[in-house]
Amino acid sequence: MSTPKRICIVGSGNWGSAIAKIIGNNVVTMPDKFHKEVRMWVFEETVNDRKLTDIINNDHENVKYLPGIALPENVVAIPDVADAGKDADIFIFVLPHQFVRKVGKSLQGTIKKDAIAVTLIKGFDVKEGGGILLISDVIRELLNIPCAILMGANIANEVAKENYCEATIGCKDPEMGPLLKDVFQADYFRIVVVPDETTVEVCGALKNIVAVGAGFADGLGYGDNTKAAVIRLGLMEMIKFCEVFYPGSNESTFLESCGVADLVTTCYGGRNRRVAEAFAKTGKSIEELETEMLNGQKLQGPPTAFEVNYMLKNKNMEDRFPLFTAIHRICKNELKVNQFMDCLKNHPEHM
Amino acid sequence: MSTPKRICIVGSGNWGSAIAKIIGNNVVTMPDKFHKEVRMWVFEETVNDRKLTDIINNDHENVKYLPGIALPENVVAIPDVADAGKDADIFIFVLPHQFVRKVGKSLQGTIKKDAIAVTLIKGFDVKEGGGILLISDVIRELLNIPCAILMGANIANEVAKENYCEATIGCKDPEMGPLLKDVFQADYFRIVVVPDETTVEVCGALKNIVAVGAGFADGLGYGDNTKAAVIRLGLMEMIKFCEVFYPGSNESTFLESCGVADLVTTCYGGRNRRVAEAFAKTGKSIEELETEMLNGQKLQGPPTAFEVNYMLKNKNMEDRFPLFTAIHRICKNELKVNQFMDCLKNHPEHM
Repeated sequence: MSTPKRICIVGSGNWGSAIAKIIGNNVVTMPDKFHKEVRMWVFEETVNDRKLTDIINNDHENVKYLPGIALPENVVAIPDVADAGKDADIFIFVLPHQFVRKVGKSLQGTIKKDAIAVTLIKGFDVKEGGGILLISDVIRELLNIPCAILMGANIANEVAKENYCEATIGCKDPEMGPLLKDVFQADYFRIVVVPDETTVEVCGALKNIVAVGAGFADGLGYGDNTKAAVIRLGLMEMIKFCEVFYPGSNESTFLESCGVADLVTTCYGGRNRRVAEAFAKTGKSIEELETEMLNGQKLQGPPTAFEVNYMLKNKNMEDRFPLFTAIHRICKNELKVNQFMDCLKNHPEHM
Repeated sequence: MSTPKRICIVGSGNWGSAIAKIIGNNVVTMPDKFHKEVRMWVFEETVNDRKLTDIINNDHENVKYLPGIALPENVVAIPDVADAGKDADIFIFVLPHQFVRKVGKSLQGTIKKDAIAVTLIKGFDVKEGGGILLISDVIRELLNIPCAILMGANIANEVAKENYCEATIGCKDPEMGPLLKDVFQADYFRIVVVPDETTVEVCGALKNIVAVGAGFADGLGYGDNTKAAVIRLGLMEMIKFCEVFYPGSNESTFLESCGVADLVTTCYGGRNRRVAEAFAKTGKSIEELETEMLNGQKLQGPPTAFEVNYMLKNKNMEDRFPLFTAIHRICKNELKVNQFMDCLKNHPEHM
């Protein structure tokens, strides 16, 4: 029998804290499999004149990013990432994607050689010069360990309240997949493991482009049917994009929580949809609306559309992705939003 | 070259009239393929002291079922179904499903031997003694002609207003499919033809069960993630149901408008969802709510759940369909609505 595995959560925001609650509760029920202490790297901040790590370790609550939710006492906050990762067997990456490289570099040379990772980070990294890198590839490359992916229709606060939902783990290693399922699954957080790692990850980024399109349809005053067509054509372009750029993906992965479920949630709720609706209604620019509606935070849909368009243009394939292409052009003011539906009238799906 | 084909629309309600508008406009653009007169069987009624057929034929508007929309002048209303179907090559069945048998019998022996049909009717017919019959099978059997299926995320009034949407034609005959696409496709009504007839039809009925579950989740106060999980698990049970009872279905058909798009629309809009939400919130029975909220009209979700449950019970398969089964039991007051999510905690999808 192997020694119980140590888990390190790299990140402690809203989603990281919700996941820490699940994992902290899970590990104590499986002492043969997992070490009971779950270390969580916390970017140190001062909150009400106290260190956030002290608050988490003494009050067992992340008052800044997940207020009102009790964290298990075996979740230990650690301000230095190399300390947090020391001796860890399983790394859970759950931090904003712009910090992955920096944090990954801090871990280089400090971690166990046979450690494994799983990323919960949605979005792409951008290649120098343009195009897309998968976050899991960045982690694999920096740390030289395998990296699985967990995605799904998961809003951190709803998960923290133990509302029923599902998630998908993409993991091709047949031993690592079930192990990670044990780490994450709770009776209210149901996991399906599929081998199709890349598709799971790519879905989590591309859905934000489609959500911008759904927002345009809403803002233009269309009803449920038009929006359903936009969502479905978006799904078909997601599938086609994987076929072209990440061959070997399995169509049934798109039916998992990471695919259709997360897409639908994002196209009905979600801030990409909301800002895009306002864009169509007000005529203001995306940047203005980010300032007004998101306190200056940036949307993921428009930059993802930009990077995807870079790849499509390079392959001379814009025509095969009329929805992605139209959304990008509208965001860049190269096309009027009221021409959006016209761009879908000769969609290759209908040929 | 073959003679231009005559089209007969059997039914003239909200959806039948919206479709008559599209077909009437289409046929005149393809005089080699289609006869310019489109006959529409209208169940004769008196509206404002005039016959509905006279109103349609003189004013070119179905003032009762699709008011405010101009119908093409080449759509001719005929009160006798055998007259309407005389010499027709293509029959479009678009009437409430309870009238299919009666109308089909009136057509028996009066139609061309090489005619073809397409049904736009959502829902199942019920076998004597229990279980499900497909409407297309009823038509095939009564008239001894092939019958394709058209389904999708289509609300008649939105289609009539020429809002962009999609539909799916299920047709295994490689000549009949493209012909029917010509009949229906407009620049705002985009058609995909798939060979998988049965799946297209079954989706249109099963989605109403799932919509009842989505309404329960809404009424119980759950958020978007839980609802996304209910919709997705519903989709997985729809797929499984086809696998078990209608083997040979193609998973990609569920990604068409008839599948995921119609399902999503029905689970966000739609009266099955709305009444189920009220059911969970008020504790009133489905029958009471039908009286209060639908003027006594009947929902399709609960009786479809009943028929599906009859088939599952017969095969001893209720456990493999926990969502369909729970929805049926809740509608029948054999289970409390607040136990709904508990029934999904050990779903076979998560094993």
